[in-house]
Amino acid sequence: MEQPNGIITLTTDFGNRDPYAGIMKGIVLKANIAARIIDITHEVPAHNIIAGAFMLYRSFKHFPEGSVHVAVVDPGVGGRRKNIAVKTDRYFFIGPDNGILSVALTNERNVQVREIKNQPFVYGKISDTFHGRDVFAPCAGHLSAGADFETIGPELDHWKELNYPKARREGNVLVGEVVTSDSFGNLITNVSEHQLASFAGHGRTEIFFATERFEKVHQRYSDVPRKTALALISSCGFLEISINEGSAADYFMTAAGTPVTIRKY
Amino acid sequence: MEQPNGIITLTTDFGNRDPYAGIMKGIVLKANIAARIIDITHEVPAHNIIAGAFMLYRSFKHFPEGSVHVAVVDPGVGGRRKNIAVKTDRYFFIGPDNGILSVALTNERNVQVREIKNQPFVYGKISDTFHGRDVFAPCAGHLSAGADFETIGPELDHWKELNYPKARREGNVLVGEVVTSDSFGNLITNVSEHQLASFAGHGRTEIFFATERFEKVHQRYSDVPRKTALALISSCGFLEISINEGSAADYFMTAAGTPVTIRKY
Amino acid sequence: MEQPNGIITLTTDFGNRDPYAGIMKGIVLKANIAARIIDITHEVPAHNIIAGAFMLYRSFKHFPEGSVHVAVVDPGVGGRRKNIAVKTDRYFFIGPDNGILSVALTNERNVQVREIKNQPFVYGKISDTFHGRDVFAPCAGHLSAGADFETIGPELDHWKELNYPKARREGNVLVGEVVTSDSFGNLITNVSEHQLASFAGHGRTEIFFATERFEKVHQRYSDVPRKTALALISSCGFLEISINEGSAADYFMTAAGTPVTIRKY
Repeated sequence: MEQPNGIITLTTDFGNRDPYAGIMKGIVLKANIAARIIDITHEVPAHNIIAGAFMLYRSFKHFPEGSVHVAVVDPGVGGRRKNIAVKTDRYFFIGPDNGILSVALTNERNVQVREIKNQPFVYGKISDTFHGRDVFAPCAGHLSAGADFETIGPELDHWKELNYPKARREGNVLVGEVVTSDSFGNLITNVSEHQLASFAGHGRTEIFFATERFEKVHQRYSDVPRKTALALISSCGFLEISINEGSAADYFMTAAGTPVTIRKY
Repeated sequence: MEQPNGIITLTTDFGNRDPYAGIMKGIVLKANIAARIIDITHEVPAHNIIAGAFMLYRSFKHFPEGSVHVAVVDPGVGGRRKNIAVKTDRYFFIGPDNGILSVALTNERNVQVREIKNQPFVYGKISDTFHGRDVFAPCAGHLSAGADFETIGPELDHWKELNYPKARREGNVLVGEVVTSDSFGNLITNVSEHQLASFAGHGRTEIFFATERFEKVHQRYSDVPRKTALALISSCGFLEISINEGSAADYFMTAAGTPVTIRKY
Repeated sequence: MEQPNGIITLTTDFGNRDPYAGIMKGIVLKANIAARIIDITHEVPAHNIIAGAFMLYRSFKHFPEGSVHVAVVDPGVGGRRKNIAVKTDRYFFIGPDNGILSVALTNERNVQVREIKNQPFVYGKISDTFHGRDVFAPCAGHLSAGADFETIGPELDHWKELNYPKARREGNVLVGEVVTSDSFGNLITNVSEHQLASFAGHGRTEIFFATERFEKVHQRYSDVPRKTALALISSCGFLEISINEGSAADYFMTAAGTPVTIRKY
């Protein structure tokens, strides 16, 4: 990464109703009047760090190099977890050290982590309830304006890894589960396209989900008739259970944790 | 239109919870780091092309000339419908060729349509599930930066017209219906201000809706007492059934399709 | 304030589903193509002027000096209330004169108020249903571009103060109430940090809310075990009733108006 590009993304559970995200933007602009702020989402389910980490993971790499990615799902705000800023060879990341950044960081190289400690990267007086405003926003503003990453605070040699369910192989079966859904009702699992391909090899597979058995991983929703269930690879690269022009979340009445099983035959 | 002005609007059914709209913005910025992206809405009801077409229609003309309007409600993504870019004498439009652009285009002159086929207007590898990211966003970014419209892909001499209910005259009665509502609960019909005026001429009219009879088309909500039903011309130029400081959608428990009848007497 | 900085904030009850906020942005950009527009919220409860006034109040001071703050919750649109623009020594404010600006203005100095009357600060033809589009957006655009405040319209020597419940002292008891909640379910009262401190003096206090008695005002949510109720000072400086990693609004099933009582002992 040569230079920050002035773009800051926000991924939070602050909601679109309350003024918290707007307040963060004001503080960012106080630090860098030229910053351009893009919302990934403010509708991460409240306090759900795993959901937030996946929102960030699915989005961050689609932004130009030099963007500053801020993610705040922070049930421990004001407690012992640290506030961190991360520099990689493509991006900056800012958030609480509770695992929310860690899924995105698995993709990145030359990861440098610092605790956000020094002014002007933090507000003069820091509240114990809103570090989005008092720490992450000023830090993002100053980093996006080209402030020296080394001056943020002490270097850290490790950061918290998110603990989330991974798909695992059990004999000739690959067992995954639903990790999130989207507002269309598509069920996104933790089985990656890569994992599925290397498990299947040249053999044939069948996929079991709830009462359904799928013989095929489709390419597009419209491969099956309207209101019909299908399995496909989602746009973010994971196995997805969907209903063409319908909601699989509603139809199967499922939530995160529902198992999906892939079997060779 | 002299030049694109760098402004891109988005009208989609991607929702504000999921990262899809944010991902599109990242891709736009990769194509044109200076682009400025304005959300019309991401809350078009899922797969509802008619609702999306009207959202775009009500909004697009309020933007400066040279804006690029992107609309994505795309249940047929990855199927046979084409991806199109349109240039008129005022704006650019980008979306699937499923009718979502067609209501806005009825207002435009010098309409040129091209299929989006060529790089860099499309991603190298196009998914079959997310053309917002792989086709419409890069196309919008490049067009907003001044790329040559002629190089997008082959010219098309027709595009899909949206099939939606129109108000019709039956003798001395004008019959329309509710096509959408807004979050205040105002019921917006398909009877335009112009259609109503030319039907009424110099005569008097009465309007029937559900159990109500209105003798007058009002100018403002506060013309009637609080919590009272009224008919008025909405800010977007259509006959609207409303309740002053209340929700007509809740009160009448109606949805799109409910008839409204205007009679001369 | 030296100069407008080109930043415009929006606080409305237009919702994120409908195109109204997007339309306002288009009109702003027609007046000032370089304007940068930041959403505070469009999810003020419909017609709730008090909620809108507090959203603005909690947010406006976090923006750089020279920002233009637009607030539109306007059940009386098209009626007799005036449209006003305000200049203080730090900011501009624009909205209907129904009290929505008044809580923010209590913090400001050198308050000058004008009625928005003259072109180009208003549209040529003003509707009676959407002054956000026809008055407030063009006014914001032109002010943000440096137009002369004196030319907006006639000076006004007073403006409408919002009538809302204030916490009051009754003997050795301070009686307040919940005025709003946020999407985490935190209940925000009308008892300010300052009011609480000056009431308590050096004595001890206990706080009664619903079935709870709190002996302490905490600093952070995580001071108490998960799913436990607590009282703390919110990030916006008011006494707040919360549940650590839970929703006090859900747990107590309360809404605006629920009393909170602070007693010295």
